[in-house]
Amino acid sequence: MIVNKYTVKNTYLGRFDYGADLHLSIEQFIISNNIKMGTIQLIGAVQKANLGYYNPQTTQYESIAIDKQLEIASGIGNISMRDGQPMAHVHLTVSDNTGRCYAGHLLEGNIIFVSEFIITELDGPIMERKADSSTGVTLWSD
Amino acid sequence: MIVNKYTVKNTYLGRFDYGADLHLSIEQFIISNNIKMGTIQLIGAVQKANLGYYNPQTTQYESIAIDKQLEIASGIGNISMRDGQPMAHVHLTVSDNTGRCYAGHLLEGNIIFVSEFIITELDGPIMERKADSSTGVTLWSD
Amino acid sequence: MIVNKYTVKNTYLGRFDYGADLHLSIEQFIISNNIKMGTIQLIGAVQKANLGYYNPQTTQYESIAIDKQLEIASGIGNISMRDGQPMAHVHLTVSDNTGRCYAGHLLEGNIIFVSEFIITELDGPIMERKADSSTGVTLWSD
Repeated sequence: MIVNKYTVKNTYLGRFDYGADLHLSIEQFIISNNIKMGTIQLIGAVQKANLGYYNPQTTQYESIAIDKQLEIASGIGNISMRDGQPMAHVHLTVSDNTGRCYAGHLLEGNIIFVSEFIITELDGPIMERKADSSTGVTLWSD
Repeated sequence: MIVNKYTVKNTYLGRFDYGADLHLSIEQFIISNNIKMGTIQLIGAVQKANLGYYNPQTTQYESIAIDKQLEIASGIGNISMRDGQPMAHVHLTVSDNTGRCYAGHLLEGNIIFVSEFIITELDGPIMERKADSSTGVTLWSD
Repeated sequence: MIVNKYTVKNTYLGRFDYGADLHLSIEQFIISNNIKMGTIQLIGAVQKANLGYYNPQTTQYESIAIDKQLEIASGIGNISMRDGQPMAHVHLTVSDNTGRCYAGHLLEGNIIFVSEFIITELDGPIMERKADSSTGVTLWSD
């Protein structure tokens, strides 16, 4: 396993803008605040969702698009570095007007209705994502 | 976007009472401990659930009632002020005996079987919820 | 209700090994690091899942096995003591290639594809799980 120890540096509470792309809003925020390591958590609603499912056979993310207003039941993730830049890895669970849930990897294409976030900036060793041969995805390594 | 910087003041770990209403239990706790800003996370089970879906056309929450024992897969949310009083905004995901999930906004009517929570009290600028014209919900504003 | 106040001691960010059992990986980590009280949060993917639904009639966990590659939409939980040893109580939400979600109590039998975790170690009163007569599960008590 890979593990490092951190202390909490800053905690940010806020909300992103109505109509913006959720993934791009997160990336923009962590890049402009230079948040290299951290965690993220969010709730709210989207006007439409676009979720990724990683297919280990094809080693590609398949896109699951849901074109309706949905609650964001949870957004959970972490922040680390890739290609020298802060990068957020977030998984999203959304639900429709019957309560039915859909979940997956946060891709571009999730349009914000309301998005309230908590971002915790961590102080400690920088972890960098690199291509991993056993899974095909970019992971932290030794 | 709206964002403020916080430091962690107190972390509370505990569980609410069997048979109590989950939403009211949270509200009672944050009001009696005067937790003005914070975050909340919970797991457990409910004897029955009542979840809200916000309909942007009618600008009303629609209630999704599920009258059976369910696991609380996740409860995620934040604490801020509304009308001069601490107020929790929580989204809940629950699941039945087939694993099937339902999610939505935490309304009254979720009866606790077990509810283990982590509440983090934050120190920093107080955010107050106010009616927002573009969404119809109460949001933090500048 | 039962509640205690804590301060954050250590924050661990990392990932468990490909192919390992998720529940055992968490237990091994918290036992070997002697993390007595804390919280845990995780995302990633599993090669197959095994989730528990607590049936209050039989007072047994029923197992829900899903034998396919799934995203881990969220893993949420806490760490406390049982029988003199650190023990993690985690609820997992997973999703398939259509976005469909399944959730429940983290049992053994969830085989890791990728598992990125945040574990927060808390400093404060030790809570010990004991059999609870009103629910049949092991809970924190006074």
